[in-house]
Amino acid sequence: MSAPTFRAIGVVHTPFTNRADTPLQPAFAHDVTGEVRFDPRYRDALDGVTGFTHLWLVTWLARFDEQAPEPELQQVPLLLRDDPKVLGIFATRGPRRPNPIGLSLVRVLSVEETTIRFAGVDLIDGTVVLDVKPYVTMFDQPVGDIQCGWFDDRLGTDNARLGSETGQGAHPCA
Amino acid sequence: MSAPTFRAIGVVHTPFTNRADTPLQPAFAHDVTGEVRFDPRYRDALDGVTGFTHLWLVTWLARFDEQAPEPELQQVPLLLRDDPKVLGIFATRGPRRPNPIGLSLVRVLSVEETTIRFAGVDLIDGTVVLDVKPYVTMFDQPVGDIQCGWFDDRLGTDNARLGSETGQGAHPCA
Repeated sequence: MSAPTFRAIGVVHTPFTNRADTPLQPAFAHDVTGEVRFDPRYRDALDGVTGFTHLWLVTWLARFDEQAPEPELQQVPLLLRDDPKVLGIFATRGPRRPNPIGLSLVRVLSVEETTIRFAGVDLIDGTVVLDVKPYVTMFDQPVGDIQCGWFDDRLGTDNARLGSETGQGAHPCA
Repeated sequence: MSAPTFRAIGVVHTPFTNRADTPLQPAFAHDVTGEVRFDPRYRDALDGVTGFTHLWLVTWLARFDEQAPEPELQQVPLLLRDDPKVLGIFATRGPRRPNPIGLSLVRVLSVEETTIRFAGVDLIDGTVVLDVKPYVTMFDQPVGDIQCGWFDDRLGTDNARLGSETGQGAHPCA
């Protein structure tokens, strides 16, 4: 069965030109700005985006002109470099995945013509964008208790935000 | 430039066999259960997933054996059927996108061998899974004010959850 191929809808431009200097997640670079420049043919698809403060960027974290190799199925996450632990890739957010798809929550600064400027950059300059989706609280925020596995130990209180429907307190992984 | 193709890492099994009966988002079907059955070759990649209460399912919302057609760039979201408004697709969560990639936040019920059972199903039976990522509060919850465009009007108080870092109150789109 031949699988479908992606369309590159745009490209991300950021200050980061090599992987080593690029933040692991937007949460580690709230104030760094970048932009998505869309293929002009998608201009009309941006109508209405200005009403949202936050967007998901769905990106391709590998070369776009060749098939990515199958990654190691178990890896040491970069966040655990100093206390190495091997984990299955589906328990990590690392970029070397069977489909190297990135998911970045960014804050919108402006939407003009075919460019979205945003803050919170974890992407290397030139990253291909596959999709942009509006952040919708009801869809994207868990209800009830939240546990975030090894991230809870590693990120500690930085990972403690309100995640319950009632907002009575920090979630249990704080 | 030849774009990369996907790998199907697994398939979703749900009670929904046709699009019309399938919920628009997991948030509309918190108690409906489904499962992802992974290709057995990815078994080791699931190590560590048990520690997470919530996962993102990244899926392909179209046929996997052919290239999806270019969609209309402006559409009436299903949520606005009763009061139609045409919006750019990047301001919607609809499935007909240049790359029909789905993003579903689900609650984990169990992880066994190569099957993850979950609650919160918005996917039709047989949907191909491209990636699974752990939900991580620090990465996936916006800091500061949140506005969700037309969803705020449509979903009203259902969309009011705590989204600020301090958790002092419901976000402005409530």
